[in-house]
Amino acid sequence: MGMVGGGQGAFIGAVHRMAAALDGHIELVCGAFSSNPEKSKASGKELYLPENRVYGTFEEMILAEKQLPEDKRMDCVSIVTPNHVHFAPAKMALEHGFHVICDKPVTFTLDEAKELEKIIEKSGLIFALTHNYLGYPMVKQAKAMVANGELGKIRKVVVEYPQGWLATKVENTDNKQASWRTDPKQAGISNCMGDIGVHAFNMTEYITGLEVTEMCADITSYGEDRPLDDDGNILLHFNNGAKGILHASQISVGEENNFNIRIYGEKMGLWWHQMEPNSLKVTYLDKPASIFRTGIGTLYPASQVHTRIPAGHPEAYIEAFANIYRNFAFALQATWAGKKPDPLYDFPGIKDGIRGMAFIGNAIASGKSNEKWVKFVV
Amino acid sequence: MGMVGGGQGAFIGAVHRMAAALDGHIELVCGAFSSNPEKSKASGKELYLPENRVYGTFEEMILAEKQLPEDKRMDCVSIVTPNHVHFAPAKMALEHGFHVICDKPVTFTLDEAKELEKIIEKSGLIFALTHNYLGYPMVKQAKAMVANGELGKIRKVVVEYPQGWLATKVENTDNKQASWRTDPKQAGISNCMGDIGVHAFNMTEYITGLEVTEMCADITSYGEDRPLDDDGNILLHFNNGAKGILHASQISVGEENNFNIRIYGEKMGLWWHQMEPNSLKVTYLDKPASIFRTGIGTLYPASQVHTRIPAGHPEAYIEAFANIYRNFAFALQATWAGKKPDPLYDFPGIKDGIRGMAFIGNAIASGKSNEKWVKFVV
Amino acid sequence: MGMVGGGQGAFIGAVHRMAAALDGHIELVCGAFSSNPEKSKASGKELYLPENRVYGTFEEMILAEKQLPEDKRMDCVSIVTPNHVHFAPAKMALEHGFHVICDKPVTFTLDEAKELEKIIEKSGLIFALTHNYLGYPMVKQAKAMVANGELGKIRKVVVEYPQGWLATKVENTDNKQASWRTDPKQAGISNCMGDIGVHAFNMTEYITGLEVTEMCADITSYGEDRPLDDDGNILLHFNNGAKGILHASQISVGEENNFNIRIYGEKMGLWWHQMEPNSLKVTYLDKPASIFRTGIGTLYPASQVHTRIPAGHPEAYIEAFANIYRNFAFALQATWAGKKPDPLYDFPGIKDGIRGMAFIGNAIASGKSNEKWVKFVV
Amino acid sequence: MGMVGGGQGAFIGAVHRMAAALDGHIELVCGAFSSNPEKSKASGKELYLPENRVYGTFEEMILAEKQLPEDKRMDCVSIVTPNHVHFAPAKMALEHGFHVICDKPVTFTLDEAKELEKIIEKSGLIFALTHNYLGYPMVKQAKAMVANGELGKIRKVVVEYPQGWLATKVENTDNKQASWRTDPKQAGISNCMGDIGVHAFNMTEYITGLEVTEMCADITSYGEDRPLDDDGNILLHFNNGAKGILHASQISVGEENNFNIRIYGEKMGLWWHQMEPNSLKVTYLDKPASIFRTGIGTLYPASQVHTRIPAGHPEAYIEAFANIYRNFAFALQATWAGKKPDPLYDFPGIKDGIRGMAFIGNAIASGKSNEKWVKFVV
Repeated sequence: MGMVGGGQGAFIGAVHRMAAALDGHIELVCGAFSSNPEKSKASGKELYLPENRVYGTFEEMILAEKQLPEDKRMDCVSIVTPNHVHFAPAKMALEHGFHVICDKPVTFTLDEAKELEKIIEKSGLIFALTHNYLGYPMVKQAKAMVANGELGKIRKVVVEYPQGWLATKVENTDNKQASWRTDPKQAGISNCMGDIGVHAFNMTEYITGLEVTEMCADITSYGEDRPLDDDGNILLHFNNGAKGILHASQISVGEENNFNIRIYGEKMGLWWHQMEPNSLKVTYLDKPASIFRTGIGTLYPASQVHTRIPAGHPEAYIEAFANIYRNFAFALQATWAGKKPDPLYDFPGIKDGIRGMAFIGNAIASGKSNEKWVKFVV
Repeated sequence: MGMVGGGQGAFIGAVHRMAAALDGHIELVCGAFSSNPEKSKASGKELYLPENRVYGTFEEMILAEKQLPEDKRMDCVSIVTPNHVHFAPAKMALEHGFHVICDKPVTFTLDEAKELEKIIEKSGLIFALTHNYLGYPMVKQAKAMVANGELGKIRKVVVEYPQGWLATKVENTDNKQASWRTDPKQAGISNCMGDIGVHAFNMTEYITGLEVTEMCADITSYGEDRPLDDDGNILLHFNNGAKGILHASQISVGEENNFNIRIYGEKMGLWWHQMEPNSLKVTYLDKPASIFRTGIGTLYPASQVHTRIPAGHPEAYIEAFANIYRNFAFALQATWAGKKPDPLYDFPGIKDGIRGMAFIGNAIASGKSNEKWVKFVV
Repeated sequence: MGMVGGGQGAFIGAVHRMAAALDGHIELVCGAFSSNPEKSKASGKELYLPENRVYGTFEEMILAEKQLPEDKRMDCVSIVTPNHVHFAPAKMALEHGFHVICDKPVTFTLDEAKELEKIIEKSGLIFALTHNYLGYPMVKQAKAMVANGELGKIRKVVVEYPQGWLATKVENTDNKQASWRTDPKQAGISNCMGDIGVHAFNMTEYITGLEVTEMCADITSYGEDRPLDDDGNILLHFNNGAKGILHASQISVGEENNFNIRIYGEKMGLWWHQMEPNSLKVTYLDKPASIFRTGIGTLYPASQVHTRIPAGHPEAYIEAFANIYRNFAFALQATWAGKKPDPLYDFPGIKDGIRGMAFIGNAIASGKSNEKWVKFVV
Repeated sequence: MGMVGGGQGAFIGAVHRMAAALDGHIELVCGAFSSNPEKSKASGKELYLPENRVYGTFEEMILAEKQLPEDKRMDCVSIVTPNHVHFAPAKMALEHGFHVICDKPVTFTLDEAKELEKIIEKSGLIFALTHNYLGYPMVKQAKAMVANGELGKIRKVVVEYPQGWLATKVENTDNKQASWRTDPKQAGISNCMGDIGVHAFNMTEYITGLEVTEMCADITSYGEDRPLDDDGNILLHFNNGAKGILHASQISVGEENNFNIRIYGEKMGLWWHQMEPNSLKVTYLDKPASIFRTGIGTLYPASQVHTRIPAGHPEAYIEAFANIYRNFAFALQATWAGKKPDPLYDFPGIKDGIRGMAFIGNAIASGKSNEKWVKFVV
């Protein structure tokens, strides 16, 4: 695997590397870690890479690796740059025959996402999108319970992603994360919805198997002169008649990553919290609630195969992220073996990316609209 | 004290009696416990009341008690009937010189609430409304922290009141609570908003000291052929520019009374949950969260005077309810002594009732409206 | 009911009064609230008692009340004094025909407790001991689950009662609670074991139905020059071969009343915490844990009849305490009606008192012994 | 790195590999994964190792690797076999110039541990023992708080490690973990104390900086005909006068790995739970408790340098385990650079191993003794 972005000081690049390394199926062999060549070199050295596999730009990397013998070159590219530098390397990598795994949101604009879909289809290659929270074992369990009809018809969803790290203007300090995320040139039309609102949206559609059909959004920027949103409260309608609430925030003082979802069906309810991810609370009409736990009892296979260690040894963020990478690796192995990837080892892809970009666009549009309900346009 | 309603089988009447009895300041001396005179008699007997103080109707009670010598007659009336039988006994009691403590929502319609306000003002008597959740010591603490500026300007409020007891059509069983609450003739224009949404609204305005100025509501009745709402999701705007979300539900399977509120200011956040009411989580910009606990450390006087027992012995629902009754009793004692009631021992009154009725009306209206934002009209 | 002790400033006296008042079955009609007659008078006045029913001493009260006509005099005596003033008023009350409800530990010495048992038996009167924690609905549920064999044979018990209020020498301040509890003349041979260790012991034997047969105790006084224990760690052996740990502490900084018990049987485990008393965690060999909640689902009758309000409205310390008083009142009513008290409405009595005194004695003795195992002598 | 043990089906071997891989500082280059050569080959293939680096025995591996040029051979050996196969490979690896990282308990007997210490000292090589729980960021924080005197003198420690997986006789099924752990030939003199009790002991001495001086143990085997212990309750005395309780169990139905520790000093208390490892509850004499969280606020450097990702993204078991491996790698790098390892990046070693073996021996001895207090002999 070659990496684009993720040089020294970046947060998410390091996470991708740990996620890729954890299960031993993927080896980092090269990278273009920074638009600054010196920084790229330094980063590569820290990662024990040979100098000649550390490149100044992603274009250079893709072209040079393409020249290497097939058994020496990278198999795939991991893209961990800010949002505005997702599309170009993904396109070029795919067009040069490399599989791609890319951070979210998939592109800078919805149009790019749609174009990328065409390129992927044409290439016949694997494209994975690191909506990492989908990798948790108890998220898999929740999805399987819904899919198997245990909840009955879903009626209501409450999904939240509050953070507090932008409660003050940290983008005015040397916080690199804060400055690019609140900069329209690098982040696009949205900060909060694009960074974390989209996780909440993606998780909701993933677990429920439903699609949002219309939204009513109240989008706010609390930070003084902050050009992009840092908070949003959204009412949701789903294609089965269910209703919901999605709220995401970066100004909720004291919140870390309190991403959580509650799903209420006719027969059962489910609660999951990212900060204590190994528990899934299951509630019933007529008996006490159960606490399902990672690795305990008769969980669905989809949950079991995403669990590494016996119950009670907590698995967390990096392990969930690594599940995306491992399943991506399994899909590559299946491709090489001329097989179809096993759907049990699923991972998000371009369709998640397109609906995610549509969510961001529709949320911001609804926030500006005087109409109560804005159709979910893709 | 004389009681109207609360005969055998009623839930809230028994709670009122326990709340009134707890601190020993109020004695139940008479009652008209049911519109069924036999049932009223039987209830009175169970309560160890002499037969001649158990009446068939509230009119009878008020007139008969008025005839008794001043030191023998009831001092005040407690009204614990369904919503449509609040106004008439309250009006008659006040007009005959009796102080009133009444269950919420205050009346059947907003107009009645406004009329009642005039009657109260004219009478010069005390009127308390049992928005019981305001009586919790940690709610008092939260209000005091906001009032003292500890949070800075409030930015966002998330208030929830999910229940699950109406997930199925229990009104078709012999559940008396369910049948009157879902019956427009007894409950009025709303079930869920009128029963519990109004608690969430009242708590929000109480702690924050803010007023809701406009709302955008998505109101639903999930129960088949259920004529009134059993769920609502509402976006809120406040008079200081803050925003919020209020959702209440009776179809959220497995939820008991998971009433909770989170308030995010510029400098601090507060979280309180009714089901574990003795903790108040306080979050900061720059240091670890604190767990404030009933009766521990340097809490505000408003919190301290509503606490009965040393920390670690949990105080709960009945104690909070009793705080309303005790403060009502203190106000009566102050009146008798020719003094003004001490504002430290506060309790909700007709103003809470009017804003509560307005909330119910505006929520239902917004739910039916195609306008995104509906002004909060009183 | 007449009360002995519980004058102004006392903690437990006020709790007893609230507990007695809550359900409306018991009326406080007289009292000897303090050994200081002025203070007794003042306390009585605050409680709205007529002057002539407020006495200077318990002897005076018992004799004077005995002179009143049967339908005017008190029915029973509540004793809420420090430990060294339990035996004398209990004895005198019983010998003058009054039922007694008494705070724990039952007496100052084990010998007194045994003598009291004889007096009670001779009198044929009701004697209740306010081991209040037994009154919680989920404690009743736990006992019923064990009694019905759901856990199989019990193997291990872990019971804890840590507090932190004596971490510093608060007995040197004006803390009345601290000064009498650490004074051997008022508290007896033990402070921590006598105050809270005995609650842990009593709860263990109550829920499990087992008896402790031998103990190995490590008893400490951390407070400088504090004459009585403020901490104890004890290994337990039970009469069915089960083993256990009991620890209680008053110097565990930051602990409020973190009384909790875990019981592990061959087939099931139970966890209950006093500070969140409405939950009972039930664990199984082969399926996810359940959270049983007060008032929810198919609990045993013993749990149901000790629950006042619908699920989700927390019931707490005073309600549990009131269950002891209510059941005591029911037993009195049964006696008056010539019936046997219904065992469903149980309450602790002299047998709990004797075993409790034996626990205190054996714990202190074991703490001083070089023998590993000290037999539990009664 | 070469690995001894950890073939297909083993639990802890896979954990060691993930822990080693996570940070990219260590590469698995060879292994003797099983005493069964076929199984070893198959395991090596799954791990993408070349056939000629997969060995049939650890002796073969050490000798063969020693023959390779220095820049090709393994740098160190990771030993992940059952307890009885720790000493021999550790000894041989050290004697052939390889650094060693070894699973706990360090050896089969205390004598072996002492002999190993001499071999290590003589070799001048690095020896790490994977007492993995020491790697958690909040454990590092706790240790630093104690070391900096924040708690004052420590008075009491309560440390627990309950599990439930051996509540039934799973060693009679095909559970490989259960069968070797309950077999004296492979596990040694103890099962429960040697597997998990020793973790509790090690954590206690690590955080507090104290040493246990005497113990009073009640050791039990609940499983029918199970030759080794599956439960133990122990009273502890420390060298500063502090007292404590340690209990560990494998028959506590429904417990996963509920390892937790509470430390009470004169001025502060600390609570940490392994199953929610990113929180550290800090309690004070005179103010509300704080919840310290991994990565939040002004934690000690020792905590910060063991944290990989921003607060709110939970880090868990594998990350803590990986901290041991990373610090071991840093120590190797320091050695190669001719420097002393930085004590900030600490890891357990042979001294932990010796005290751990002593704990196991003393616990079992005390369990069999009629003496109340058994001196902690090393």
